Amino acid sequence: MDLLKIKDPAFLKKMTIPEMEELSAEIRKFLIESTSVTGGHIGPNLGVVELTIALHHSFSSPRDKFIFDVGHQSYVHKILTGRADRFDTLRQHGGLDGFPKRKESEHDVFETGHSSTSLSAAAGMAIARDIKHEDYHVLPIIGDGALTGGMALEALNHIGDMGKEVIVILNDNNMSIAPNVGAMHNMLGKLRTSGKFKRAKKDVERAMKRIPQAGDRIANAAERIKDSIKYLLVQGTFFEEMGFTYLGPVNGHDYQDLITNFEFSKKVKGPTLIHVVTKKGKGYAPAETDKSGVWHGTGPYKIETGDFIKPVLAAAPWSEVISDTILELAKEDERIVAITPAMPVGSKLEKFAKTFPDRFFDVGIAEQHAVTLAAGVAADGLKPFLAIYSTFLQRGYDQVVHDVARQNLSVLIGIDRAGLVGGDGETHQGVFDIAFLRSIPNMVIAMPKDENEAYHLIQTAHAFSGPFALRYPRGSGSGAVIVKDKASLPIGSWETLIEPVNAVILTFGTTIDMALLAAEALNKRGLGVGVVNARFIKPLDEKLLQTLLERKLAILTVEEAVLAGGFGSSVLEFAEEQGVLDVLIHRIGLPDEFISHGSVDLLLKENGISQEAIEQKLEEMLGYFGKLEAN
Amino acid sequence: MDLLKIKDPAFLKKMTIPEMEELSAEIRKFLIESTSVTGGHIGPNLGVVELTIALHHSFSSPRDKFIFDVGHQSYVHKILTGRADRFDTLRQHGGLDGFPKRKESEHDVFETGHSSTSLSAAAGMAIARDIKHEDYHVLPIIGDGALTGGMALEALNHIGDMGKEVIVILNDNNMSIAPNVGAMHNMLGKLRTSGKFKRAKKDVERAMKRIPQAGDRIANAAERIKDSIKYLLVQGTFFEEMGFTYLGPVNGHDYQDLITNFEFSKKVKGPTLIHVVTKKGKGYAPAETDKSGVWHGTGPYKIETGDFIKPVLAAAPWSEVISDTILELAKEDERIVAITPAMPVGSKLEKFAKTFPDRFFDVGIAEQHAVTLAAGVAADGLKPFLAIYSTFLQRGYDQVVHDVARQNLSVLIGIDRAGLVGGDGETHQGVFDIAFLRSIPNMVIAMPKDENEAYHLIQTAHAFSGPFALRYPRGSGSGAVIVKDKASLPIGSWETLIEPVNAVILTFGTTIDMALLAAEALNKRGLGVGVVNARFIKPLDEKLLQTLLERKLAILTVEEAVLAGGFGSSVLEFAEEQGVLDVLIHRIGLPDEFISHGSVDLLLKENGISQEAIEQKLEEMLGYFGKLEAN
Repeated sequence: MDLLKIKDPAFLKKMTIPEMEELSAEIRKFLIESTSVTGGHIGPNLGVVELTIALHHSFSSPRDKFIFDVGHQSYVHKILTGRADRFDTLRQHGGLDGFPKRKESEHDVFETGHSSTSLSAAAGMAIARDIKHEDYHVLPIIGDGALTGGMALEALNHIGDMGKEVIVILNDNNMSIAPNVGAMHNMLGKLRTSGKFKRAKKDVERAMKRIPQAGDRIANAAERIKDSIKYLLVQGTFFEEMGFTYLGPVNGHDYQDLITNFEFSKKVKGPTLIHVVTKKGKGYAPAETDKSGVWHGTGPYKIETGDFIKPVLAAAPWSEVISDTILELAKEDERIVAITPAMPVGSKLEKFAKTFPDRFFDVGIAEQHAVTLAAGVAADGLKPFLAIYSTFLQRGYDQVVHDVARQNLSVLIGIDRAGLVGGDGETHQGVFDIAFLRSIPNMVIAMPKDENEAYHLIQTAHAFSGPFALRYPRGSGSGAVIVKDKASLPIGSWETLIEPVNAVILTFGTTIDMALLAAEALNKRGLGVGVVNARFIKPLDEKLLQTLLERKLAILTVEEAVLAGGFGSSVLEFAEEQGVLDVLIHRIGLPDEFISHGSVDLLLKENGISQEAIEQKLEEMLGYFGKLEAN
Repeated sequence: MDLLKIKDPAFLKKMTIPEMEELSAEIRKFLIESTSVTGGHIGPNLGVVELTIALHHSFSSPRDKFIFDVGHQSYVHKILTGRADRFDTLRQHGGLDGFPKRKESEHDVFETGHSSTSLSAAAGMAIARDIKHEDYHVLPIIGDGALTGGMALEALNHIGDMGKEVIVILNDNNMSIAPNVGAMHNMLGKLRTSGKFKRAKKDVERAMKRIPQAGDRIANAAERIKDSIKYLLVQGTFFEEMGFTYLGPVNGHDYQDLITNFEFSKKVKGPTLIHVVTKKGKGYAPAETDKSGVWHGTGPYKIETGDFIKPVLAAAPWSEVISDTILELAKEDERIVAITPAMPVGSKLEKFAKTFPDRFFDVGIAEQHAVTLAAGVAADGLKPFLAIYSTFLQRGYDQVVHDVARQNLSVLIGIDRAGLVGGDGETHQGVFDIAFLRSIPNMVIAMPKDENEAYHLIQTAHAFSGPFALRYPRGSGSGAVIVKDKASLPIGSWETLIEPVNAVILTFGTTIDMALLAAEALNKRGLGVGVVNARFIKPLDEKLLQTLLERKLAILTVEEAVLAGGFGSSVLEFAEEQGVLDVLIHRIGLPDEFISHGSVDLLLKENGISQEAIEQKLEEMLGYFGKLEAN
């Protein structure tokens, strides 16, 4: 059928299983073809083709509420709800979002992006449904990895206690378990409705129990952690003790099995959990056989070979520069341990893990634990490095305040993906961390202008006693040569890059280059604009700033972060504290709104963070003083 | 013995059980006598007298690391580590802290206050120990309630996976379970070391399984939730599947039982969990028989009668004013539901729970879930009211950003205990919420000046579409008469209380009274100081503020919250955006440091938030303009 013409998923209700199987093949072909051009989360989506079709077959969206945990596995759902024609714009500015979005479709009833939220949202919707005396189904679709997040367990506990009707779809896509489980499910499916269910389930449990002892198939800690929680849960007894009816395991690529269980679940009173086993990348060999996770989310690729069409990187990614420097330090200082909440690949910590397996800790999706774990390590005298994406550090905010900063512990927080992130959009922009960290006492916050400065800031952090947040963006830097002299930079020291005469730009990290270009352009016209690398966002270089204020220079702050409560505000605060009255200070940064997906360059421009915007603002400011005319 | 002379807990090592029993009685007497004067967490501490003594008997602090989860049950530990002589200063400014504090003693190895952090901290210390090739024991002491917090489960999962030696002391003080369990433990204690352990444990499990079905003893949802998690866990299988050795249940008031298990746990490799059953309030009849939880933490009381010596409250507590208004609205609008993470009493939601049991949700200690649950309820068209203490909202920060504000959902967050809280100190001050909420797009933040304004702000929030945070402090207001006219206040509207001539104070909530007094005092000298009630912290009343700026009035902002990124900063930001150059703006608020315990009045004064400080600052500001002399 023509996928582009689908408007409403209701047509699925009348489809036979062979017709749905044909549709699956068409959707897989479409997904592969479109993501090979746009990139996207192809692996997870190929895994849920049958699951999503069967859900729309058995249930009635939007009356029934599908809540996709994390949400990057909602492409099939988007195709079935009339959005196939926009897949050529996937994750591009103004185009189709890579995650569920309420404004895109009435079928996207709850937006996701961060992990482990769907069960809480489902509990909320079940409450609302019952109060409204309505009778629709609420179906959170959650992966096995997301269950390690504490809030998912908080929600399971609450749902089980309330006894409200919620149908949890556990999408278990751990490839290594699939074949084992697959061998058992058919027998189980037949037995379930026949009353012999209990005995059969016992057999299954016993069989599954053997799996974790299988040894070498479990490659790394995060996988083991995921497995341990999942294993405990999917034995069934855990859920049943909690008040859930447990159905499964179900073959997530077998329509008969899926539909039988979905229909059965409608008749169950109270909370149900359907354990569906799927295979990531199903139906596309390179993704299906992927062991390393590179097919989870990709850029464009060649369909025939599965080769990635990689953009030429100017230099090593920031994550690698940081992790390599930490690794070098760790070779000399046994006190250094590295911690990541489920991002060993994204944070480029594989080398560290390989070199120091006993000093590397992947705790799974568990940001709160990760932060306080680091606090515990530091409280006992070691020097933990916690690599965490800016957007996910939001989950550990209280732990940063209460456990790390309040005790003034020496935790180096590597804030990865700081600033705008591009395709992942709204839910993943790392733009709040300056505002939420800056108001916490004891925190030092820094951002390097290039790889060499990153190296030296890490030496600084290593020598420092107290919490130190080092921000670095997605992507790569300029490839600056690192002078490995082990020198530290004084805490709170800024660096003057262009000596100011009439005005000065205070900025750091990613926006330094545009500031330099703007200053150079203005200085060709003799405007005397300086640039200062404000590499310490907290504390400020008060001495330098004091001088700038005393010289009554026009000051423009520029940051790739929210303006409200950001770096620029701290400059305003300092000027206020000094009682400065007649210095013109202006700020450039992100407005008070959530920033959608799109290329970082485009988003920056659109939000007034660009060389042109800087030049224009400075012209205005200098014009105010009559400096423009004077020169 | 003379408790005041204890310097080091090492003396306990040589004590016999009868001697320790005598010591227990002395410590109980001391605890009751001292807290009857100072107030404090008497119930929890009476419950852990034997447990704490036995821990110090069997283990060697500070070499072995005791981490008290939440930490308000550390009084006995403080007595045994040389701090009995300071108990007359407990929770008072400059006096003994009510929670563990590293600066107080080398025996306080990790500071706590918020729930559920101890397991993560212990995991970190176990990591540090092994890297340092040392061999001390790490012992988190965690209550059953704290296990519902997601981060505790994240940590259990990680500890079990690592297999590191951590001895978790589960302090199960659910009074209703104690007698049942108590009957079984003796048999168990003997059997454990004899190899017949497994069979006996099965009996215990079966017996415990019957308890939750006992019916009416389970009074409320939070208790059920706590029970359900605990029940799952303490069956033993859960922990054992996770990689823990499970020991228990142990009678927490029987030295032989405690010591036998502690000594046994030293020989166990890998993580161990000792399930200790204690009785809150043990040994003091009024606390021991308490069913309502009033003896958890108290003010001063009469020892003989157990009557509380209550301070005369000027008016109903803020929590009650807010909750009653919500309840009234809920009677007219079925869409309103109330949610609390384990604080139904503190947030005064008992009346709501009684009136609308189907629309009231106590989710236990589970702040992340509570926030996203509210988002789910709102996404499906209802109007949730989430009551949460400012300091605990920190735990749900990401959920406020990602689930509530990003989707612009109509959740009314009642931020209870906003501002300084007094005796609980550092870990509980509600001083960061303005800074961390203000930078989130879509948020409205308001704080009432009195009960009447609170009523009207709630009407405003109810009519509003989007997230609305209403802050209110601990304690009670002035008892203002509420005019129940159902009128809303325009979003972002401020109120001029004293018309300004030369200067204006912008403030809100608790600091309005001191601002009025300061202005009146200055105006007697003809200085023309106005006061504006900036009841909307976000958005600002831009029209009014614009006028004040245009009139070039000296502006002083006053807030009981951190200055960095706070309300005053938003005024500076607005002035910057308007390009205002020659208006003197100054800010009064809390400095960039953690604020210790003490009476709120004292802490305010000490931190420069007082009528005198306001007067002084305004004199300076007006002097700057020469206004002081002119008048």
